[in-house]
Amino acid sequence: MAEGQTEPRTVRELGEFGLIARISRGIPRASEWVVAGIGDDTAALRLCPGFLLLATCDVQVEGVHFILDRTTPELLGRKALAVNLSDVAAMGGIPRFGLVSLGLPPSTPVAMVDGLYEGLRAEADEFGVTLVGGNISSTRGGIFIDITLLGEVEPDRVLYRSSAKPGDSLIVTGYLGDSAGGLALILDSALAVPLEVAETLLLAHRRPTPRVAAGRAVAATGLAHAMIDLSDGLAGDLGHVAEASGVGGVVWADRLPISPELRALGRLLDRDPLEWALRGGEDYELLVVVPPTAEAAVLDAIAATGLAAAVIGEVRPSEEGLTIALADGRRHPLSAVAFHHF
Amino acid sequence: MAEGQTEPRTVRELGEFGLIARISRGIPRASEWVVAGIGDDTAALRLCPGFLLLATCDVQVEGVHFILDRTTPELLGRKALAVNLSDVAAMGGIPRFGLVSLGLPPSTPVAMVDGLYEGLRAEADEFGVTLVGGNISSTRGGIFIDITLLGEVEPDRVLYRSSAKPGDSLIVTGYLGDSAGGLALILDSALAVPLEVAETLLLAHRRPTPRVAAGRAVAATGLAHAMIDLSDGLAGDLGHVAEASGVGGVVWADRLPISPELRALGRLLDRDPLEWALRGGEDYELLVVVPPTAEAAVLDAIAATGLAAAVIGEVRPSEEGLTIALADGRRHPLSAVAFHHF
Repeated sequence: MAEGQTEPRTVRELGEFGLIARISRGIPRASEWVVAGIGDDTAALRLCPGFLLLATCDVQVEGVHFILDRTTPELLGRKALAVNLSDVAAMGGIPRFGLVSLGLPPSTPVAMVDGLYEGLRAEADEFGVTLVGGNISSTRGGIFIDITLLGEVEPDRVLYRSSAKPGDSLIVTGYLGDSAGGLALILDSALAVPLEVAETLLLAHRRPTPRVAAGRAVAATGLAHAMIDLSDGLAGDLGHVAEASGVGGVVWADRLPISPELRALGRLLDRDPLEWALRGGEDYELLVVVPPTAEAAVLDAIAATGLAAAVIGEVRPSEEGLTIALADGRRHPLSAVAFHHF
Repeated sequence: MAEGQTEPRTVRELGEFGLIARISRGIPRASEWVVAGIGDDTAALRLCPGFLLLATCDVQVEGVHFILDRTTPELLGRKALAVNLSDVAAMGGIPRFGLVSLGLPPSTPVAMVDGLYEGLRAEADEFGVTLVGGNISSTRGGIFIDITLLGEVEPDRVLYRSSAKPGDSLIVTGYLGDSAGGLALILDSALAVPLEVAETLLLAHRRPTPRVAAGRAVAATGLAHAMIDLSDGLAGDLGHVAEASGVGGVVWADRLPISPELRALGRLLDRDPLEWALRGGEDYELLVVVPPTAEAAVLDAIAATGLAAAVIGEVRPSEEGLTIALADGRRHPLSAVAFHHF
């Protein structure tokens, strides 16, 4: 900055093009794969010959997906990209390029945008993604961060939702429900909870880890029938697989991976952690559908990426619907109540 | 619908998944190029072997880019896609796939979303684009429509902003400033203007035609040095080319293509239409930079697509900066004042 100038404090002071220049700093404009990045009418990109292009977009909206003073701009930036990385992971793909569409009220502090991009860049670097474009607009309402993520995958490795078969095993990675537990804490900050419990659950909600390596490992086995990421909650996302594949399924309650921290929160709040695990949403773990003969190989492949995984149920014929089998032998319909936006 | 149910009137009544099902109607899920469309974690897409992937995104925000009661949902849907088509056109590319991220207040009428998608689908069909994904979120503020458009182009045909050379001719398609004239009418609806003038200018603003065919035709000549679409106004966008190419330029005022309707509005409002042509923005015409020897061939190629084009200036060395030469021989700095968001 020239002497005598003061650092702009809001995006209104900085202006659109100043903001674009600022957030483009440190983002490479060209590489072997990025022929043209930020700064032209569109990005111009190369893919691996013969691979399928994967494309997905997901948005974080202030007041809907996040509350500004309950997270940090860095974590928000990371999460906005992570939820998209999770979708590419669920196809068995390699994330490659990101486009960021940002809506900001003019009064947004520049420091907030700096933090957001710090998080975005850190998450992009961690997962080998290059930010190649986007746009910035003012809004009359709150902030939104809409990210389109492009990836690629070998045509004989891609995993859809639609190929689950009766008799297949259901595998999930990691723990279920921690994110919902974290959200419960965020929404009632007066709760008195041991720090180690709170930190684990808040981190699961604020900084989910997309299971890209595990997704690639599953795809590389060539053995799985279907895969989906758990964004709407196990009940909802299993419902998506069941609908797309024309099948039913049973989930064994006592096999669901529930963390000690979530169990502790359940005891404190006198709530069954099973509900969070089934309907919580935003876990961003993977649900993998494999023939029983491939169970061991797929579990090993996931474990080799440093992630735990568990068999939690079985695909059933569609006429059996979706059910949950409790430890005492009772079965209930697994009513697919997912997170609803409206 | 089952008997006895009433048609839902707002997106809150319809719900997220009901809305997704509704807007996905009539959108093909698979084709030779779309291996998986709407309905999986990501779209899975094929490109022409050896082509570059083009990727861009642009958003329309309520209260910033549009005012709901001054346009129709259909036109809004068309324009949200058109502004992205224009970017792919400016690279010389073929538009292929669209992803639509929609932010809607829960009280949004379902009929509004229906209209929006009618426009989106019509524009997509007209330009050979398949809608392959997206997401819907509620907002606490107004509506936003963020679209990512993917296209492709031959690597030896792609046209950037950065290769303009001193001595090159500047060509623009169509008329400049009509969109700004239309916006002036929208913002002051008490203006008394002949209907034929108003209709032409309003249409230019509300329903811009992306110059995809002309962009492809220019690329096919293999003769142009650079291309950009005019979204920020000629002064601003020529500034982008000048900056990216390290050049200056002169625009000849009396060569700027100004429509009879815009001249009529200028007379009515006692304003010089030149200002709209230079700084109005949202014309979505193409600015093409060609060596003088290629002028005739490129003008012919554009004319063959049914579109008028005109030589409006010349690329100059960077030390001359950007100027406008008036009919009386005076030159002024073409201060690159583009449309600023903040």
